[in-house]
Amino acid sequence: MSELHLLSPRGFRAGGAYAGIKSRQINDVGILLCDDPSGATAAAAFTTNQVFAAPIAIGRKHVADGRLRAIVVNSGNANACTGKQGLADAFAMCKLAAAQLGCKPAHVLPSSTGIIGHHLPMAKVARGIVEASQDLGDSSDHALAFADAILTTDTRRKSAAATVKIGRATATIAGICKGAGMIGPRLALGERHATMLAYLTTDAQISAPALRKLLAPAVNRSFNAVTIDDHTSTNDTAAILASGAGDAKISTIAAAKKFLAALTDVCQSLARQIAADGEGATKVVRVEVTRAAGDRDAHLIARAIANSPLVKCAMHGNDPNWGRIVSAAGMCGARFDPDRATLKLQSVPVFTRGRPAAFDPAAVSAALAASEVVVALDCGQGKSSATVWTCDLSKEYVTINADYHT
Amino acid sequence: MSELHLLSPRGFRAGGAYAGIKSRQINDVGILLCDDPSGATAAAAFTTNQVFAAPIAIGRKHVADGRLRAIVVNSGNANACTGKQGLADAFAMCKLAAAQLGCKPAHVLPSSTGIIGHHLPMAKVARGIVEASQDLGDSSDHALAFADAILTTDTRRKSAAATVKIGRATATIAGICKGAGMIGPRLALGERHATMLAYLTTDAQISAPALRKLLAPAVNRSFNAVTIDDHTSTNDTAAILASGAGDAKISTIAAAKKFLAALTDVCQSLARQIAADGEGATKVVRVEVTRAAGDRDAHLIARAIANSPLVKCAMHGNDPNWGRIVSAAGMCGARFDPDRATLKLQSVPVFTRGRPAAFDPAAVSAALAASEVVVALDCGQGKSSATVWTCDLSKEYVTINADYHT
Repeated sequence: MSELHLLSPRGFRAGGAYAGIKSRQINDVGILLCDDPSGATAAAAFTTNQVFAAPIAIGRKHVADGRLRAIVVNSGNANACTGKQGLADAFAMCKLAAAQLGCKPAHVLPSSTGIIGHHLPMAKVARGIVEASQDLGDSSDHALAFADAILTTDTRRKSAAATVKIGRATATIAGICKGAGMIGPRLALGERHATMLAYLTTDAQISAPALRKLLAPAVNRSFNAVTIDDHTSTNDTAAILASGAGDAKISTIAAAKKFLAALTDVCQSLARQIAADGEGATKVVRVEVTRAAGDRDAHLIARAIANSPLVKCAMHGNDPNWGRIVSAAGMCGARFDPDRATLKLQSVPVFTRGRPAAFDPAAVSAALAASEVVVALDCGQGKSSATVWTCDLSKEYVTINADYHT
Repeated sequence: MSELHLLSPRGFRAGGAYAGIKSRQINDVGILLCDDPSGATAAAAFTTNQVFAAPIAIGRKHVADGRLRAIVVNSGNANACTGKQGLADAFAMCKLAAAQLGCKPAHVLPSSTGIIGHHLPMAKVARGIVEASQDLGDSSDHALAFADAILTTDTRRKSAAATVKIGRATATIAGICKGAGMIGPRLALGERHATMLAYLTTDAQISAPALRKLLAPAVNRSFNAVTIDDHTSTNDTAAILASGAGDAKISTIAAAKKFLAALTDVCQSLARQIAADGEGATKVVRVEVTRAAGDRDAHLIARAIANSPLVKCAMHGNDPNWGRIVSAAGMCGARFDPDRATLKLQSVPVFTRGRPAAFDPAAVSAALAASEVVVALDCGQGKSSATVWTCDLSKEYVTINADYHT
């Protein structure tokens, strides 16, 4: 399992190059290619921000027919808020990649991430595309070269993979992602657009409609459930390509269920890695809301707790200040009755049905000094649940974001 | 103007005492009394958080008949999430004050602010109420003694006042408030409840229904338009008492309009002072959204910009990173079209109808290093506008909130 990488699913190659777009000298242009000349079946979810980047506009069109040959991506510049020139540049990225790879520009999905409001340095981008195209391969090194090309303020690469038995066949699903800031994805399929970027590969044989149908719930329970700053980006994208080069066929409901479970596992692992690498983060905070009155209530409450700067600072300080958590649940517009709710921090009850629970603050504080903290709120009202991943809020977050631009 | 204080409107006295509830040795119990034994006409808006403190539950009942004789307040302990004992304690505060002041407990509005989830130290509270009651007066020193009694993480007192001519008569309106953290009030009259606390006095002759009617729009355009952390507290309260001891009668529509304008001015000054004293704040950020598609859109956009930690950090770093502002507008669920929008930072256009505007980053950065910064977004879509006050996000915010509890 642990040795699987983005290119473990059969039928894919990738590469990356440093073109000088990022100041940090690490790959900033990447190419992911499906070997099959007729392309992979594909599905993608894009940010729902009404201010969406040029590559999102192009990408929506290019994935509309459920077929992609390649993904071309740059980091260091988001190509967002760049008007008509931006659209031309995003399409030019597809054309340049297509010329190198021998396919149609319409079968290339473009992606960008980085600073908003600057035109792409196209000479550099072009050079990067040519260079990345010249060394495509399916080794773990090639997977790393592509993974590097999508990083911005990330301090580390993020990847996950799984295999799933479908009858006697095995499908492999793998993915990489980036994202450390401007993370509050609200991705929708075929609609609008985030700068979380996630690319998934699989060698399963699956139709484009089935892939779309399975990507949606997997995304909702993973990328759409991670928040660093609740800021839905202009560029968020989660795309999956299925090469069909393996022998596993996803053609029955039972097979689809197994595939979805594995895909969700991969996406959730990636989402958790985003929270762990959140700007300035020292720990992951997993907010688990159970027995909420309804699904909307569960999600509203989990997000409100995860986004509260007061809660995030308390987590940073290992401070069992549960009043901030309960009050966040009460203010978010969800149905919530404190008299029926129980809150546990690292499994220790701190608030029980409207009243403080007796607990040892020093012991709970010590338990909060973990790399992953669980905030569990049992609403006692219904049957809905939601899990959201976030991180703590540290001084380092301010350092990173007060100085990012200049 | 500048020498007016909370007790400048005729017919009020106040006092404060240190009872040892707060660790900081500054008054923590306060009393505000209307001289007239029949009480003041009164209106109050309370937090809309479903997790509301005991004094909110009691206060809603006590203000329901539009008449109050006194306000009793403590700081250092919010009496929130404290169950039945909390309700008994909040009512006991009213009873203790009523016994000292010679009125009915039902004519006393109780307020608390501070840590959530701890029972009030009633022996200390009782001592404080007796002591504060023994030195009531209408001097500026008495106003200060009362003002001190509501402070928690505030670094300074906040007060404002105005006079308004009604025919030949003059009404005076004054107010004080507290709030530096857990500030994202969503106050509603007669409904639910914030820990922003604001107390307003006036000597105008005005009926309780008229007072309620005027307090609502004044609160919406001031306290409900300030956010430090978007966290609606369990205890937020804005209450106004009208002694009727002056000669100005608010009995015509024209008089009501004048009174409302003055009341709104006082409330907005207080709201701005809250933003300026936000935890760790180094500057006020005024977000002005104009020509939005509708009122809801204008408010959603202004709040999304004001609450974005990315925007707040950029403001802290004097960084003209306008992409964060425009993308916040696009993600908040409001109708927003970047191609029609123009964004100005300190009057300098940085984004014009979907495209970056040419500007001198160094000059704009220098302009952002002011004590009050204006972020002005013209949506170019409709006629609605909204103004929200917030502050920047600094490392000091993290210091304060990672260590507040323990």
